[in-house]
Amino acid sequence: MKKEIRIGLIGYGFMGRTHSNAYSQLSHFFDTTHVPVRQAVCGRDEAKVKAFAEKWGYASYETDWRELVKREDIDAVDICTPNDSHAEIALECIKHGKMILCEKPLALNGAQGEEMVKAVEASGLPNLVWYNYRFLPAVTLAKNIVDAGELGRVFHYRANFLQDWTISEELPQGGAGLWRLDAAAAGSGVTGDLLAHCIDTARWINGDVVSVSAMTETFIKERVHTATGEKHPVTIDDACAFLARFENGSLAIFESTRYARGHKALYTFEINGEKKSLAWDLHDLNYLSYFDHGVPGDRRGWTNIHATDGDHPYSGNWWVPGLCLGYEHSFTHELAEFFKSLDDPTAEKRYPDFRHALGTQYVCDAVLESAKTGQWVNVKKA
Amino acid sequence: MKKEIRIGLIGYGFMGRTHSNAYSQLSHFFDTTHVPVRQAVCGRDEAKVKAFAEKWGYASYETDWRELVKREDIDAVDICTPNDSHAEIALECIKHGKMILCEKPLALNGAQGEEMVKAVEASGLPNLVWYNYRFLPAVTLAKNIVDAGELGRVFHYRANFLQDWTISEELPQGGAGLWRLDAAAAGSGVTGDLLAHCIDTARWINGDVVSVSAMTETFIKERVHTATGEKHPVTIDDACAFLARFENGSLAIFESTRYARGHKALYTFEINGEKKSLAWDLHDLNYLSYFDHGVPGDRRGWTNIHATDGDHPYSGNWWVPGLCLGYEHSFTHELAEFFKSLDDPTAEKRYPDFRHALGTQYVCDAVLESAKTGQWVNVKKA
Amino acid sequence: MKKEIRIGLIGYGFMGRTHSNAYSQLSHFFDTTHVPVRQAVCGRDEAKVKAFAEKWGYASYETDWRELVKREDIDAVDICTPNDSHAEIALECIKHGKMILCEKPLALNGAQGEEMVKAVEASGLPNLVWYNYRFLPAVTLAKNIVDAGELGRVFHYRANFLQDWTISEELPQGGAGLWRLDAAAAGSGVTGDLLAHCIDTARWINGDVVSVSAMTETFIKERVHTATGEKHPVTIDDACAFLARFENGSLAIFESTRYARGHKALYTFEINGEKKSLAWDLHDLNYLSYFDHGVPGDRRGWTNIHATDGDHPYSGNWWVPGLCLGYEHSFTHELAEFFKSLDDPTAEKRYPDFRHALGTQYVCDAVLESAKTGQWVNVKKA
Amino acid sequence: MKKEIRIGLIGYGFMGRTHSNAYSQLSHFFDTTHVPVRQAVCGRDEAKVKAFAEKWGYASYETDWRELVKREDIDAVDICTPNDSHAEIALECIKHGKMILCEKPLALNGAQGEEMVKAVEASGLPNLVWYNYRFLPAVTLAKNIVDAGELGRVFHYRANFLQDWTISEELPQGGAGLWRLDAAAAGSGVTGDLLAHCIDTARWINGDVVSVSAMTETFIKERVHTATGEKHPVTIDDACAFLARFENGSLAIFESTRYARGHKALYTFEINGEKKSLAWDLHDLNYLSYFDHGVPGDRRGWTNIHATDGDHPYSGNWWVPGLCLGYEHSFTHELAEFFKSLDDPTAEKRYPDFRHALGTQYVCDAVLESAKTGQWVNVKKA
Repeated sequence: MKKEIRIGLIGYGFMGRTHSNAYSQLSHFFDTTHVPVRQAVCGRDEAKVKAFAEKWGYASYETDWRELVKREDIDAVDICTPNDSHAEIALECIKHGKMILCEKPLALNGAQGEEMVKAVEASGLPNLVWYNYRFLPAVTLAKNIVDAGELGRVFHYRANFLQDWTISEELPQGGAGLWRLDAAAAGSGVTGDLLAHCIDTARWINGDVVSVSAMTETFIKERVHTATGEKHPVTIDDACAFLARFENGSLAIFESTRYARGHKALYTFEINGEKKSLAWDLHDLNYLSYFDHGVPGDRRGWTNIHATDGDHPYSGNWWVPGLCLGYEHSFTHELAEFFKSLDDPTAEKRYPDFRHALGTQYVCDAVLESAKTGQWVNVKKA
Repeated sequence: MKKEIRIGLIGYGFMGRTHSNAYSQLSHFFDTTHVPVRQAVCGRDEAKVKAFAEKWGYASYETDWRELVKREDIDAVDICTPNDSHAEIALECIKHGKMILCEKPLALNGAQGEEMVKAVEASGLPNLVWYNYRFLPAVTLAKNIVDAGELGRVFHYRANFLQDWTISEELPQGGAGLWRLDAAAAGSGVTGDLLAHCIDTARWINGDVVSVSAMTETFIKERVHTATGEKHPVTIDDACAFLARFENGSLAIFESTRYARGHKALYTFEINGEKKSLAWDLHDLNYLSYFDHGVPGDRRGWTNIHATDGDHPYSGNWWVPGLCLGYEHSFTHELAEFFKSLDDPTAEKRYPDFRHALGTQYVCDAVLESAKTGQWVNVKKA
Repeated sequence: MKKEIRIGLIGYGFMGRTHSNAYSQLSHFFDTTHVPVRQAVCGRDEAKVKAFAEKWGYASYETDWRELVKREDIDAVDICTPNDSHAEIALECIKHGKMILCEKPLALNGAQGEEMVKAVEASGLPNLVWYNYRFLPAVTLAKNIVDAGELGRVFHYRANFLQDWTISEELPQGGAGLWRLDAAAAGSGVTGDLLAHCIDTARWINGDVVSVSAMTETFIKERVHTATGEKHPVTIDDACAFLARFENGSLAIFESTRYARGHKALYTFEINGEKKSLAWDLHDLNYLSYFDHGVPGDRRGWTNIHATDGDHPYSGNWWVPGLCLGYEHSFTHELAEFFKSLDDPTAEKRYPDFRHALGTQYVCDAVLESAKTGQWVNVKKA
Repeated sequence: MKKEIRIGLIGYGFMGRTHSNAYSQLSHFFDTTHVPVRQAVCGRDEAKVKAFAEKWGYASYETDWRELVKREDIDAVDICTPNDSHAEIALECIKHGKMILCEKPLALNGAQGEEMVKAVEASGLPNLVWYNYRFLPAVTLAKNIVDAGELGRVFHYRANFLQDWTISEELPQGGAGLWRLDAAAAGSGVTGDLLAHCIDTARWINGDVVSVSAMTETFIKERVHTATGEKHPVTIDDACAFLARFENGSLAIFESTRYARGHKALYTFEINGEKKSLAWDLHDLNYLSYFDHGVPGDRRGWTNIHATDGDHPYSGNWWVPGLCLGYEHSFTHELAEFFKSLDDPTAEKRYPDFRHALGTQYVCDAVLESAKTGQWVNVKKA
């Protein structure tokens, strides 16, 4: 017998769509005990939120998130609002005993995050942060290979998240879709938006980061703000690169920018171990690049694993070998893991909860501090 | 105001799932006047068809397709059964005035197909065949470039569809999922199953094929049939390759096999024109390879277009630039085109109807005949 | 003690340069008992042949090949003239007891080739044809893997040689560098020039071809001939594609053209066996693509072997792992094999001799006949 | 009339071979006024140096470099010895009025380098450092594109040089071929050996580096030294990564290691400008990846330029379009540039001279200092 989890979604922008897709698709492809019910969606613009509810099959809508959070017919709240409201909404959800599925990054900074973790852990409520990229089959396959100890000692990790969409000086800051250029709403620029993804995956696969040395840059210093129609200084980081040392002794370099002409959303990572190496690229997301030094010398090379077979993570739930999955499948997989963990809350979680996301937040905080001070900064442990 | 098209789906196997996904997803991503309603699904095993209906949100189910076809609350029938039943079911649908969305190939052979085309055209009912690969953004982009005349005179076309899933001698023929190895149910082997896709795309992009010279092979001559538990001769073609000449004077080679070790579902095509060339590959379906001879000599090369931007076909309906789509999106796009054409039946159709699919069937027939006779065979014109 | 082989080179065009490079480089990188001495070069234009001799360190020059062939201080003659003179020169060399290194293809046709084989075998003189591509490390690695039986039963072979340099209608036929467009001098177009390479490699790796069905096309029907300054019909094949069956039961497709916009010299081949598959591409000549079905299911994929290690064929004679070789190295390797075989004439030869090249000529002849008749043609056995 | 430059080569190891190949090949492919003569080679082991002289056609040999440097029949000295002797030999050459072609890196450190630059500039003698990778056609093409201002404002530069050959703990330090693991002979590990290449190219293409923040690591702390047979601490850097800021305002990350399993000699760089981006990879050295934002939106992508045409740098001197060059060609091209500059010493030099190499040395010094202190370090200007 299926158990229904009634979802209340706050925010209906880009992330609202990706999460709604997961709620719609889950039961078509995954046989979980708990199933999501699209109970309500909340947004300030009534006409728009109503249209969204109709399009995505939400049974009702709200225009005030505080109302949604109170509703007794809601079991879980999904927070898809800009970063500066995550903490306030989450704390209110906890008061009302709702499970929380919170869009990343967890909070504006570590201090906010700590408060959220403390409250949610005291409540015992299930909680998740939508670091979705982990859940692409090729990325999960990488995790499984590392966890099986196949790499031996790890020497290197490197990750990039390169975009080019803000190069034009004409692009304003603030406003719908552009709050990511406004530090007040976003907390930071590429560090919280993009590097946070890289750091989440890295920590999941390669363990904790202990120290970092970073640099950031804001290439275009002033942009028109949509709120005032006037030019204001840009306060986010357009680009950020950092050196890091992991607890396991490996070295890392991370880089993110929105000024890498030619790259739309090029999230890549690579890990080099004594015995094996792995690499992955979001533009070709079905492939995992795999190098096995155990193969005889004249046959060694990087193997392109098209992770679309029944024995690859999640892939067997979809089509047949060779048929590609896309970006949005990652959210469905994350949701499947969350629901699966509701069956057995003591089992190890495959998804990032608030505490794990706090660790990622601490790395971001250290990166931003290092960029400011020009010093190596030790990372607080979550 | 949305107009509902109540769908009756016959067959709930692999293709039943891909089509159901399209019916579920269409309205989330495309703003069409007509919208699909999952009204009924039909299958012979009641327990299974009931479970399928629940999982995919069909309002009802049937166990006899003749009952479904008669129902007045059905506007369109989707035929997802093995190839040998397409003609019979389609003709019955036409009698009852149902639109038809038929899985490919259209029929077992041209003669059956002719009967279907004659009947459906006499009825005036909208009709579609699910040659889905056309509708991947990169493939549609290729079509648009060719249609704009950018290639100049076309010299060459080549296409492959390579798989490796039937190499083992232990694999039986017949039975669920394996009727594709049984000529009685499937009509042919790779020719109708895989080359038909290549031919549909080729004819869409490069026009009609006028003559072919083919060879086929059945590498494993006998397999256990699941119906008898005994070894029977294998009567399908395991592999097929053919030379072809197009009406526009270009030459082509086509090849398909289920014995190309290492290829899961490697559908590739390439077209070479005087001024430009294009190439595509199903394993990397978001990319179109593009060569433009008009670029200055020292900058020429094959460009990998990641067809995930707002200005690429269909992509703007989904996510943001750089985020991959997958296999199943092609069906949603084909459905969107079908529904769009209901608004204006006089507009040029972007999807293959029965008549276009009959032309593809004629090429398949000519290929099989040439393989038998060792002669060049002229292709009948649809 | 090194034994000198005094070389007389006839022809100093493009191939004269590649062979001279091999004579210059051999001793720098290979430790053979026999070493080449650049004794004489022959060409009709005295000023040019003299300049060539100086540039490449030939001790003398001739302007009449019959004089060169007679010289007692010449041990081996390298024939680099257009195809229509190979037979005549070779027969004269044999009369004078010279070893022969003949540029491919062996002859204008099988009949000429038979005469050459008969004469050279009666003489016992060492003889080689410059099918150089075999000798690239990645290609030889492919051969070694197949010879070790690692592929199991072979199902498919496919090869292309695609170029785009003759698309312009302005290009004349005949004259220096353009005799390849003149059937009188070249014998055929892409069949003898390009497909001959593909066939040589295929027969070396996969055994004899037994039958073919081909089509050819001349896209541009008339071109100015440099000899007359007037338009004449073009009698070579601009493009040729053929289906083939090999003695081992495998199927093949071959294609070559000079009208594939975007491809400069894209020679590719792929072989699919029961257990392994291999693929290669001249534009990326240091890589062999390798698929091993024996690898566990979730780790399988195409491996890019960068064949530049000490344990790859020939590579250890050059630099260190990871450093690319280029096109011309293939000639040096072929020469090394030829000289090595002089030490032990009974050992199996790694290089194509006249008899092997005759077999390749027979395939070309069958291809051209099939293209003319539209019938499958059986291939004569060399 | 050709002018001979009589070369005296000191050292006959791996680099002695690459340089000798350039001396042998130059006149076969480049028409320079000055031509090299292989006059003498010098090494301490008489039998070996004699054999090398014979193999490579040097007219004589020496066993004491001081003797070679004095010889009146030597015009230019090529220094191929370990890094710790460059300065001493170079200064002696200058005393004797010899041009110098010095293997990279210039010296053990900036102080040594300054002395060399001062002396050589006072002497007016032509001088070159063998940073060969600049001279691969694809890399020079990148330089030309940047110099033409096509990128607009540059935002990012990134370069890696990844190897995996020292991962085994069994590998000793010191001795032939292994002096690169011995800090006394090499000065540093990957910083001077590999990053120096990356820095040379970066400075050539993107201008001066102004500040760096680095980390280094020695993964295997002790290795047997071949001189003593006993374990000694390893004092070189096994891996080094650094952040950098260029004078033009762009940000950079650089990384090098000999512990990146799967990479043999993966030197890569990428540069992102406002309008265009470029990327390159030593494992595929004939290709330049090129992104042009000026192309219409739906056609944009990374173009793989196979830089083997007549209009690509250096390529026209070799074969025909599509035929790959290899690693060693880079040295021949550098030599061609050096000899060309002898015709007109006032023309801008395409090759790195001592002063340019000193600038690279300063970056290496700053990197090593930063790794030691954990601080950002400003780079001295050459």
